[in-house]
Amino acid sequence: MKDIQFNTDPTLSRKEFYSELLEQVQCICEDQTFWVTNLSNASTVIYHGLISLEHFQEKPINWCGFYITNPKNPQQLILGPFQGKVACTVIPFGKGVCGTAASSKESQLVRDVHEFPGHIACDSASNSEVVIPLVKDGRVLGVLDIDCEKIEGFTQEDKDGLEAIASVIVKCCEWPAA
Amino acid sequence: MKDIQFNTDPTLSRKEFYSELLEQVQCICEDQTFWVTNLSNASTVIYHGLISLEHFQEKPINWCGFYITNPKNPQQLILGPFQGKVACTVIPFGKGVCGTAASSKESQLVRDVHEFPGHIACDSASNSEVVIPLVKDGRVLGVLDIDCEKIEGFTQEDKDGLEAIASVIVKCCEWPAA
Repeated sequence: MKDIQFNTDPTLSRKEFYSELLEQVQCICEDQTFWVTNLSNASTVIYHGLISLEHFQEKPINWCGFYITNPKNPQQLILGPFQGKVACTVIPFGKGVCGTAASSKESQLVRDVHEFPGHIACDSASNSEVVIPLVKDGRVLGVLDIDCEKIEGFTQEDKDGLEAIASVIVKCCEWPAA
Repeated sequence: MKDIQFNTDPTLSRKEFYSELLEQVQCICEDQTFWVTNLSNASTVIYHGLISLEHFQEKPINWCGFYITNPKNPQQLILGPFQGKVACTVIPFGKGVCGTAASSKESQLVRDVHEFPGHIACDSASNSEVVIPLVKDGRVLGVLDIDCEKIEGFTQEDKDGLEAIASVIVKCCEWPAA
């Protein structure tokens, strides 16, 4: 077991923070390919990293985790490992913020989820959201989904930083067959 | 999505509490068989249920989740969904508290993990632990593992209540092939 430190300097710039977080995610995935194990540890590294930042003291993150493309239904996301409270178990591609990220293969940075057409409210505490699709060779493997209790919790810098992390996660795992 | 309430009465007796928790776990597993999804939601229902109890205000739970038998190595546990900080990714059967629960197929109620021969310290904050094996038709599918920051965090009542919950989880999931 490698020693993963969570004592991120809360005053780091977002760019420095994401550079550190990327290294931590690379570290936990280094010796392991099982997607369940890596997504379980990745969700806690990302969650605890983010909540340690000054910015997120005022904008509490209430959910951080993964949905994966259902191995039994390629047009449906199914709940994977996460940190947070109980979550919706299935989301059709195209529905809500996660489903839109999956069907469009494009990250969704949503200032106010209540303004998003077809928003699925798993947790009424959530007000803003960022969702990054996990894409390999054109196939959507799942999404990384992070919810914030305040409106406009996330910025373009978060989206960019999380996209780099998602890319590492895609590469380091053996994924369930389509 | 069913509405799962976490507002457990903190003064419930442990017996009443586990009866409620069992119903919650049954509820989240009712319409879903994918083991990753059910273990992800079960870990948060159990974690948030336990930390709402008065008893665990003084004995903080710092980790609650699952290891499963590695589909590629039947003598090894591999990290599954959990709530808590980064965890060890693999544990050989027979090693530490989790490995002992897996190899013996018997629950382990450990007053002080530092007195347990071969204890694996994933998180130095942990001082006591309860581990319940998930067994189906004689095969160990994995373990439910809960850590507490204080010595003697768990009682026989916790072990009994968690064994009933583990039994529901075993039944409701489709598990990876051996």
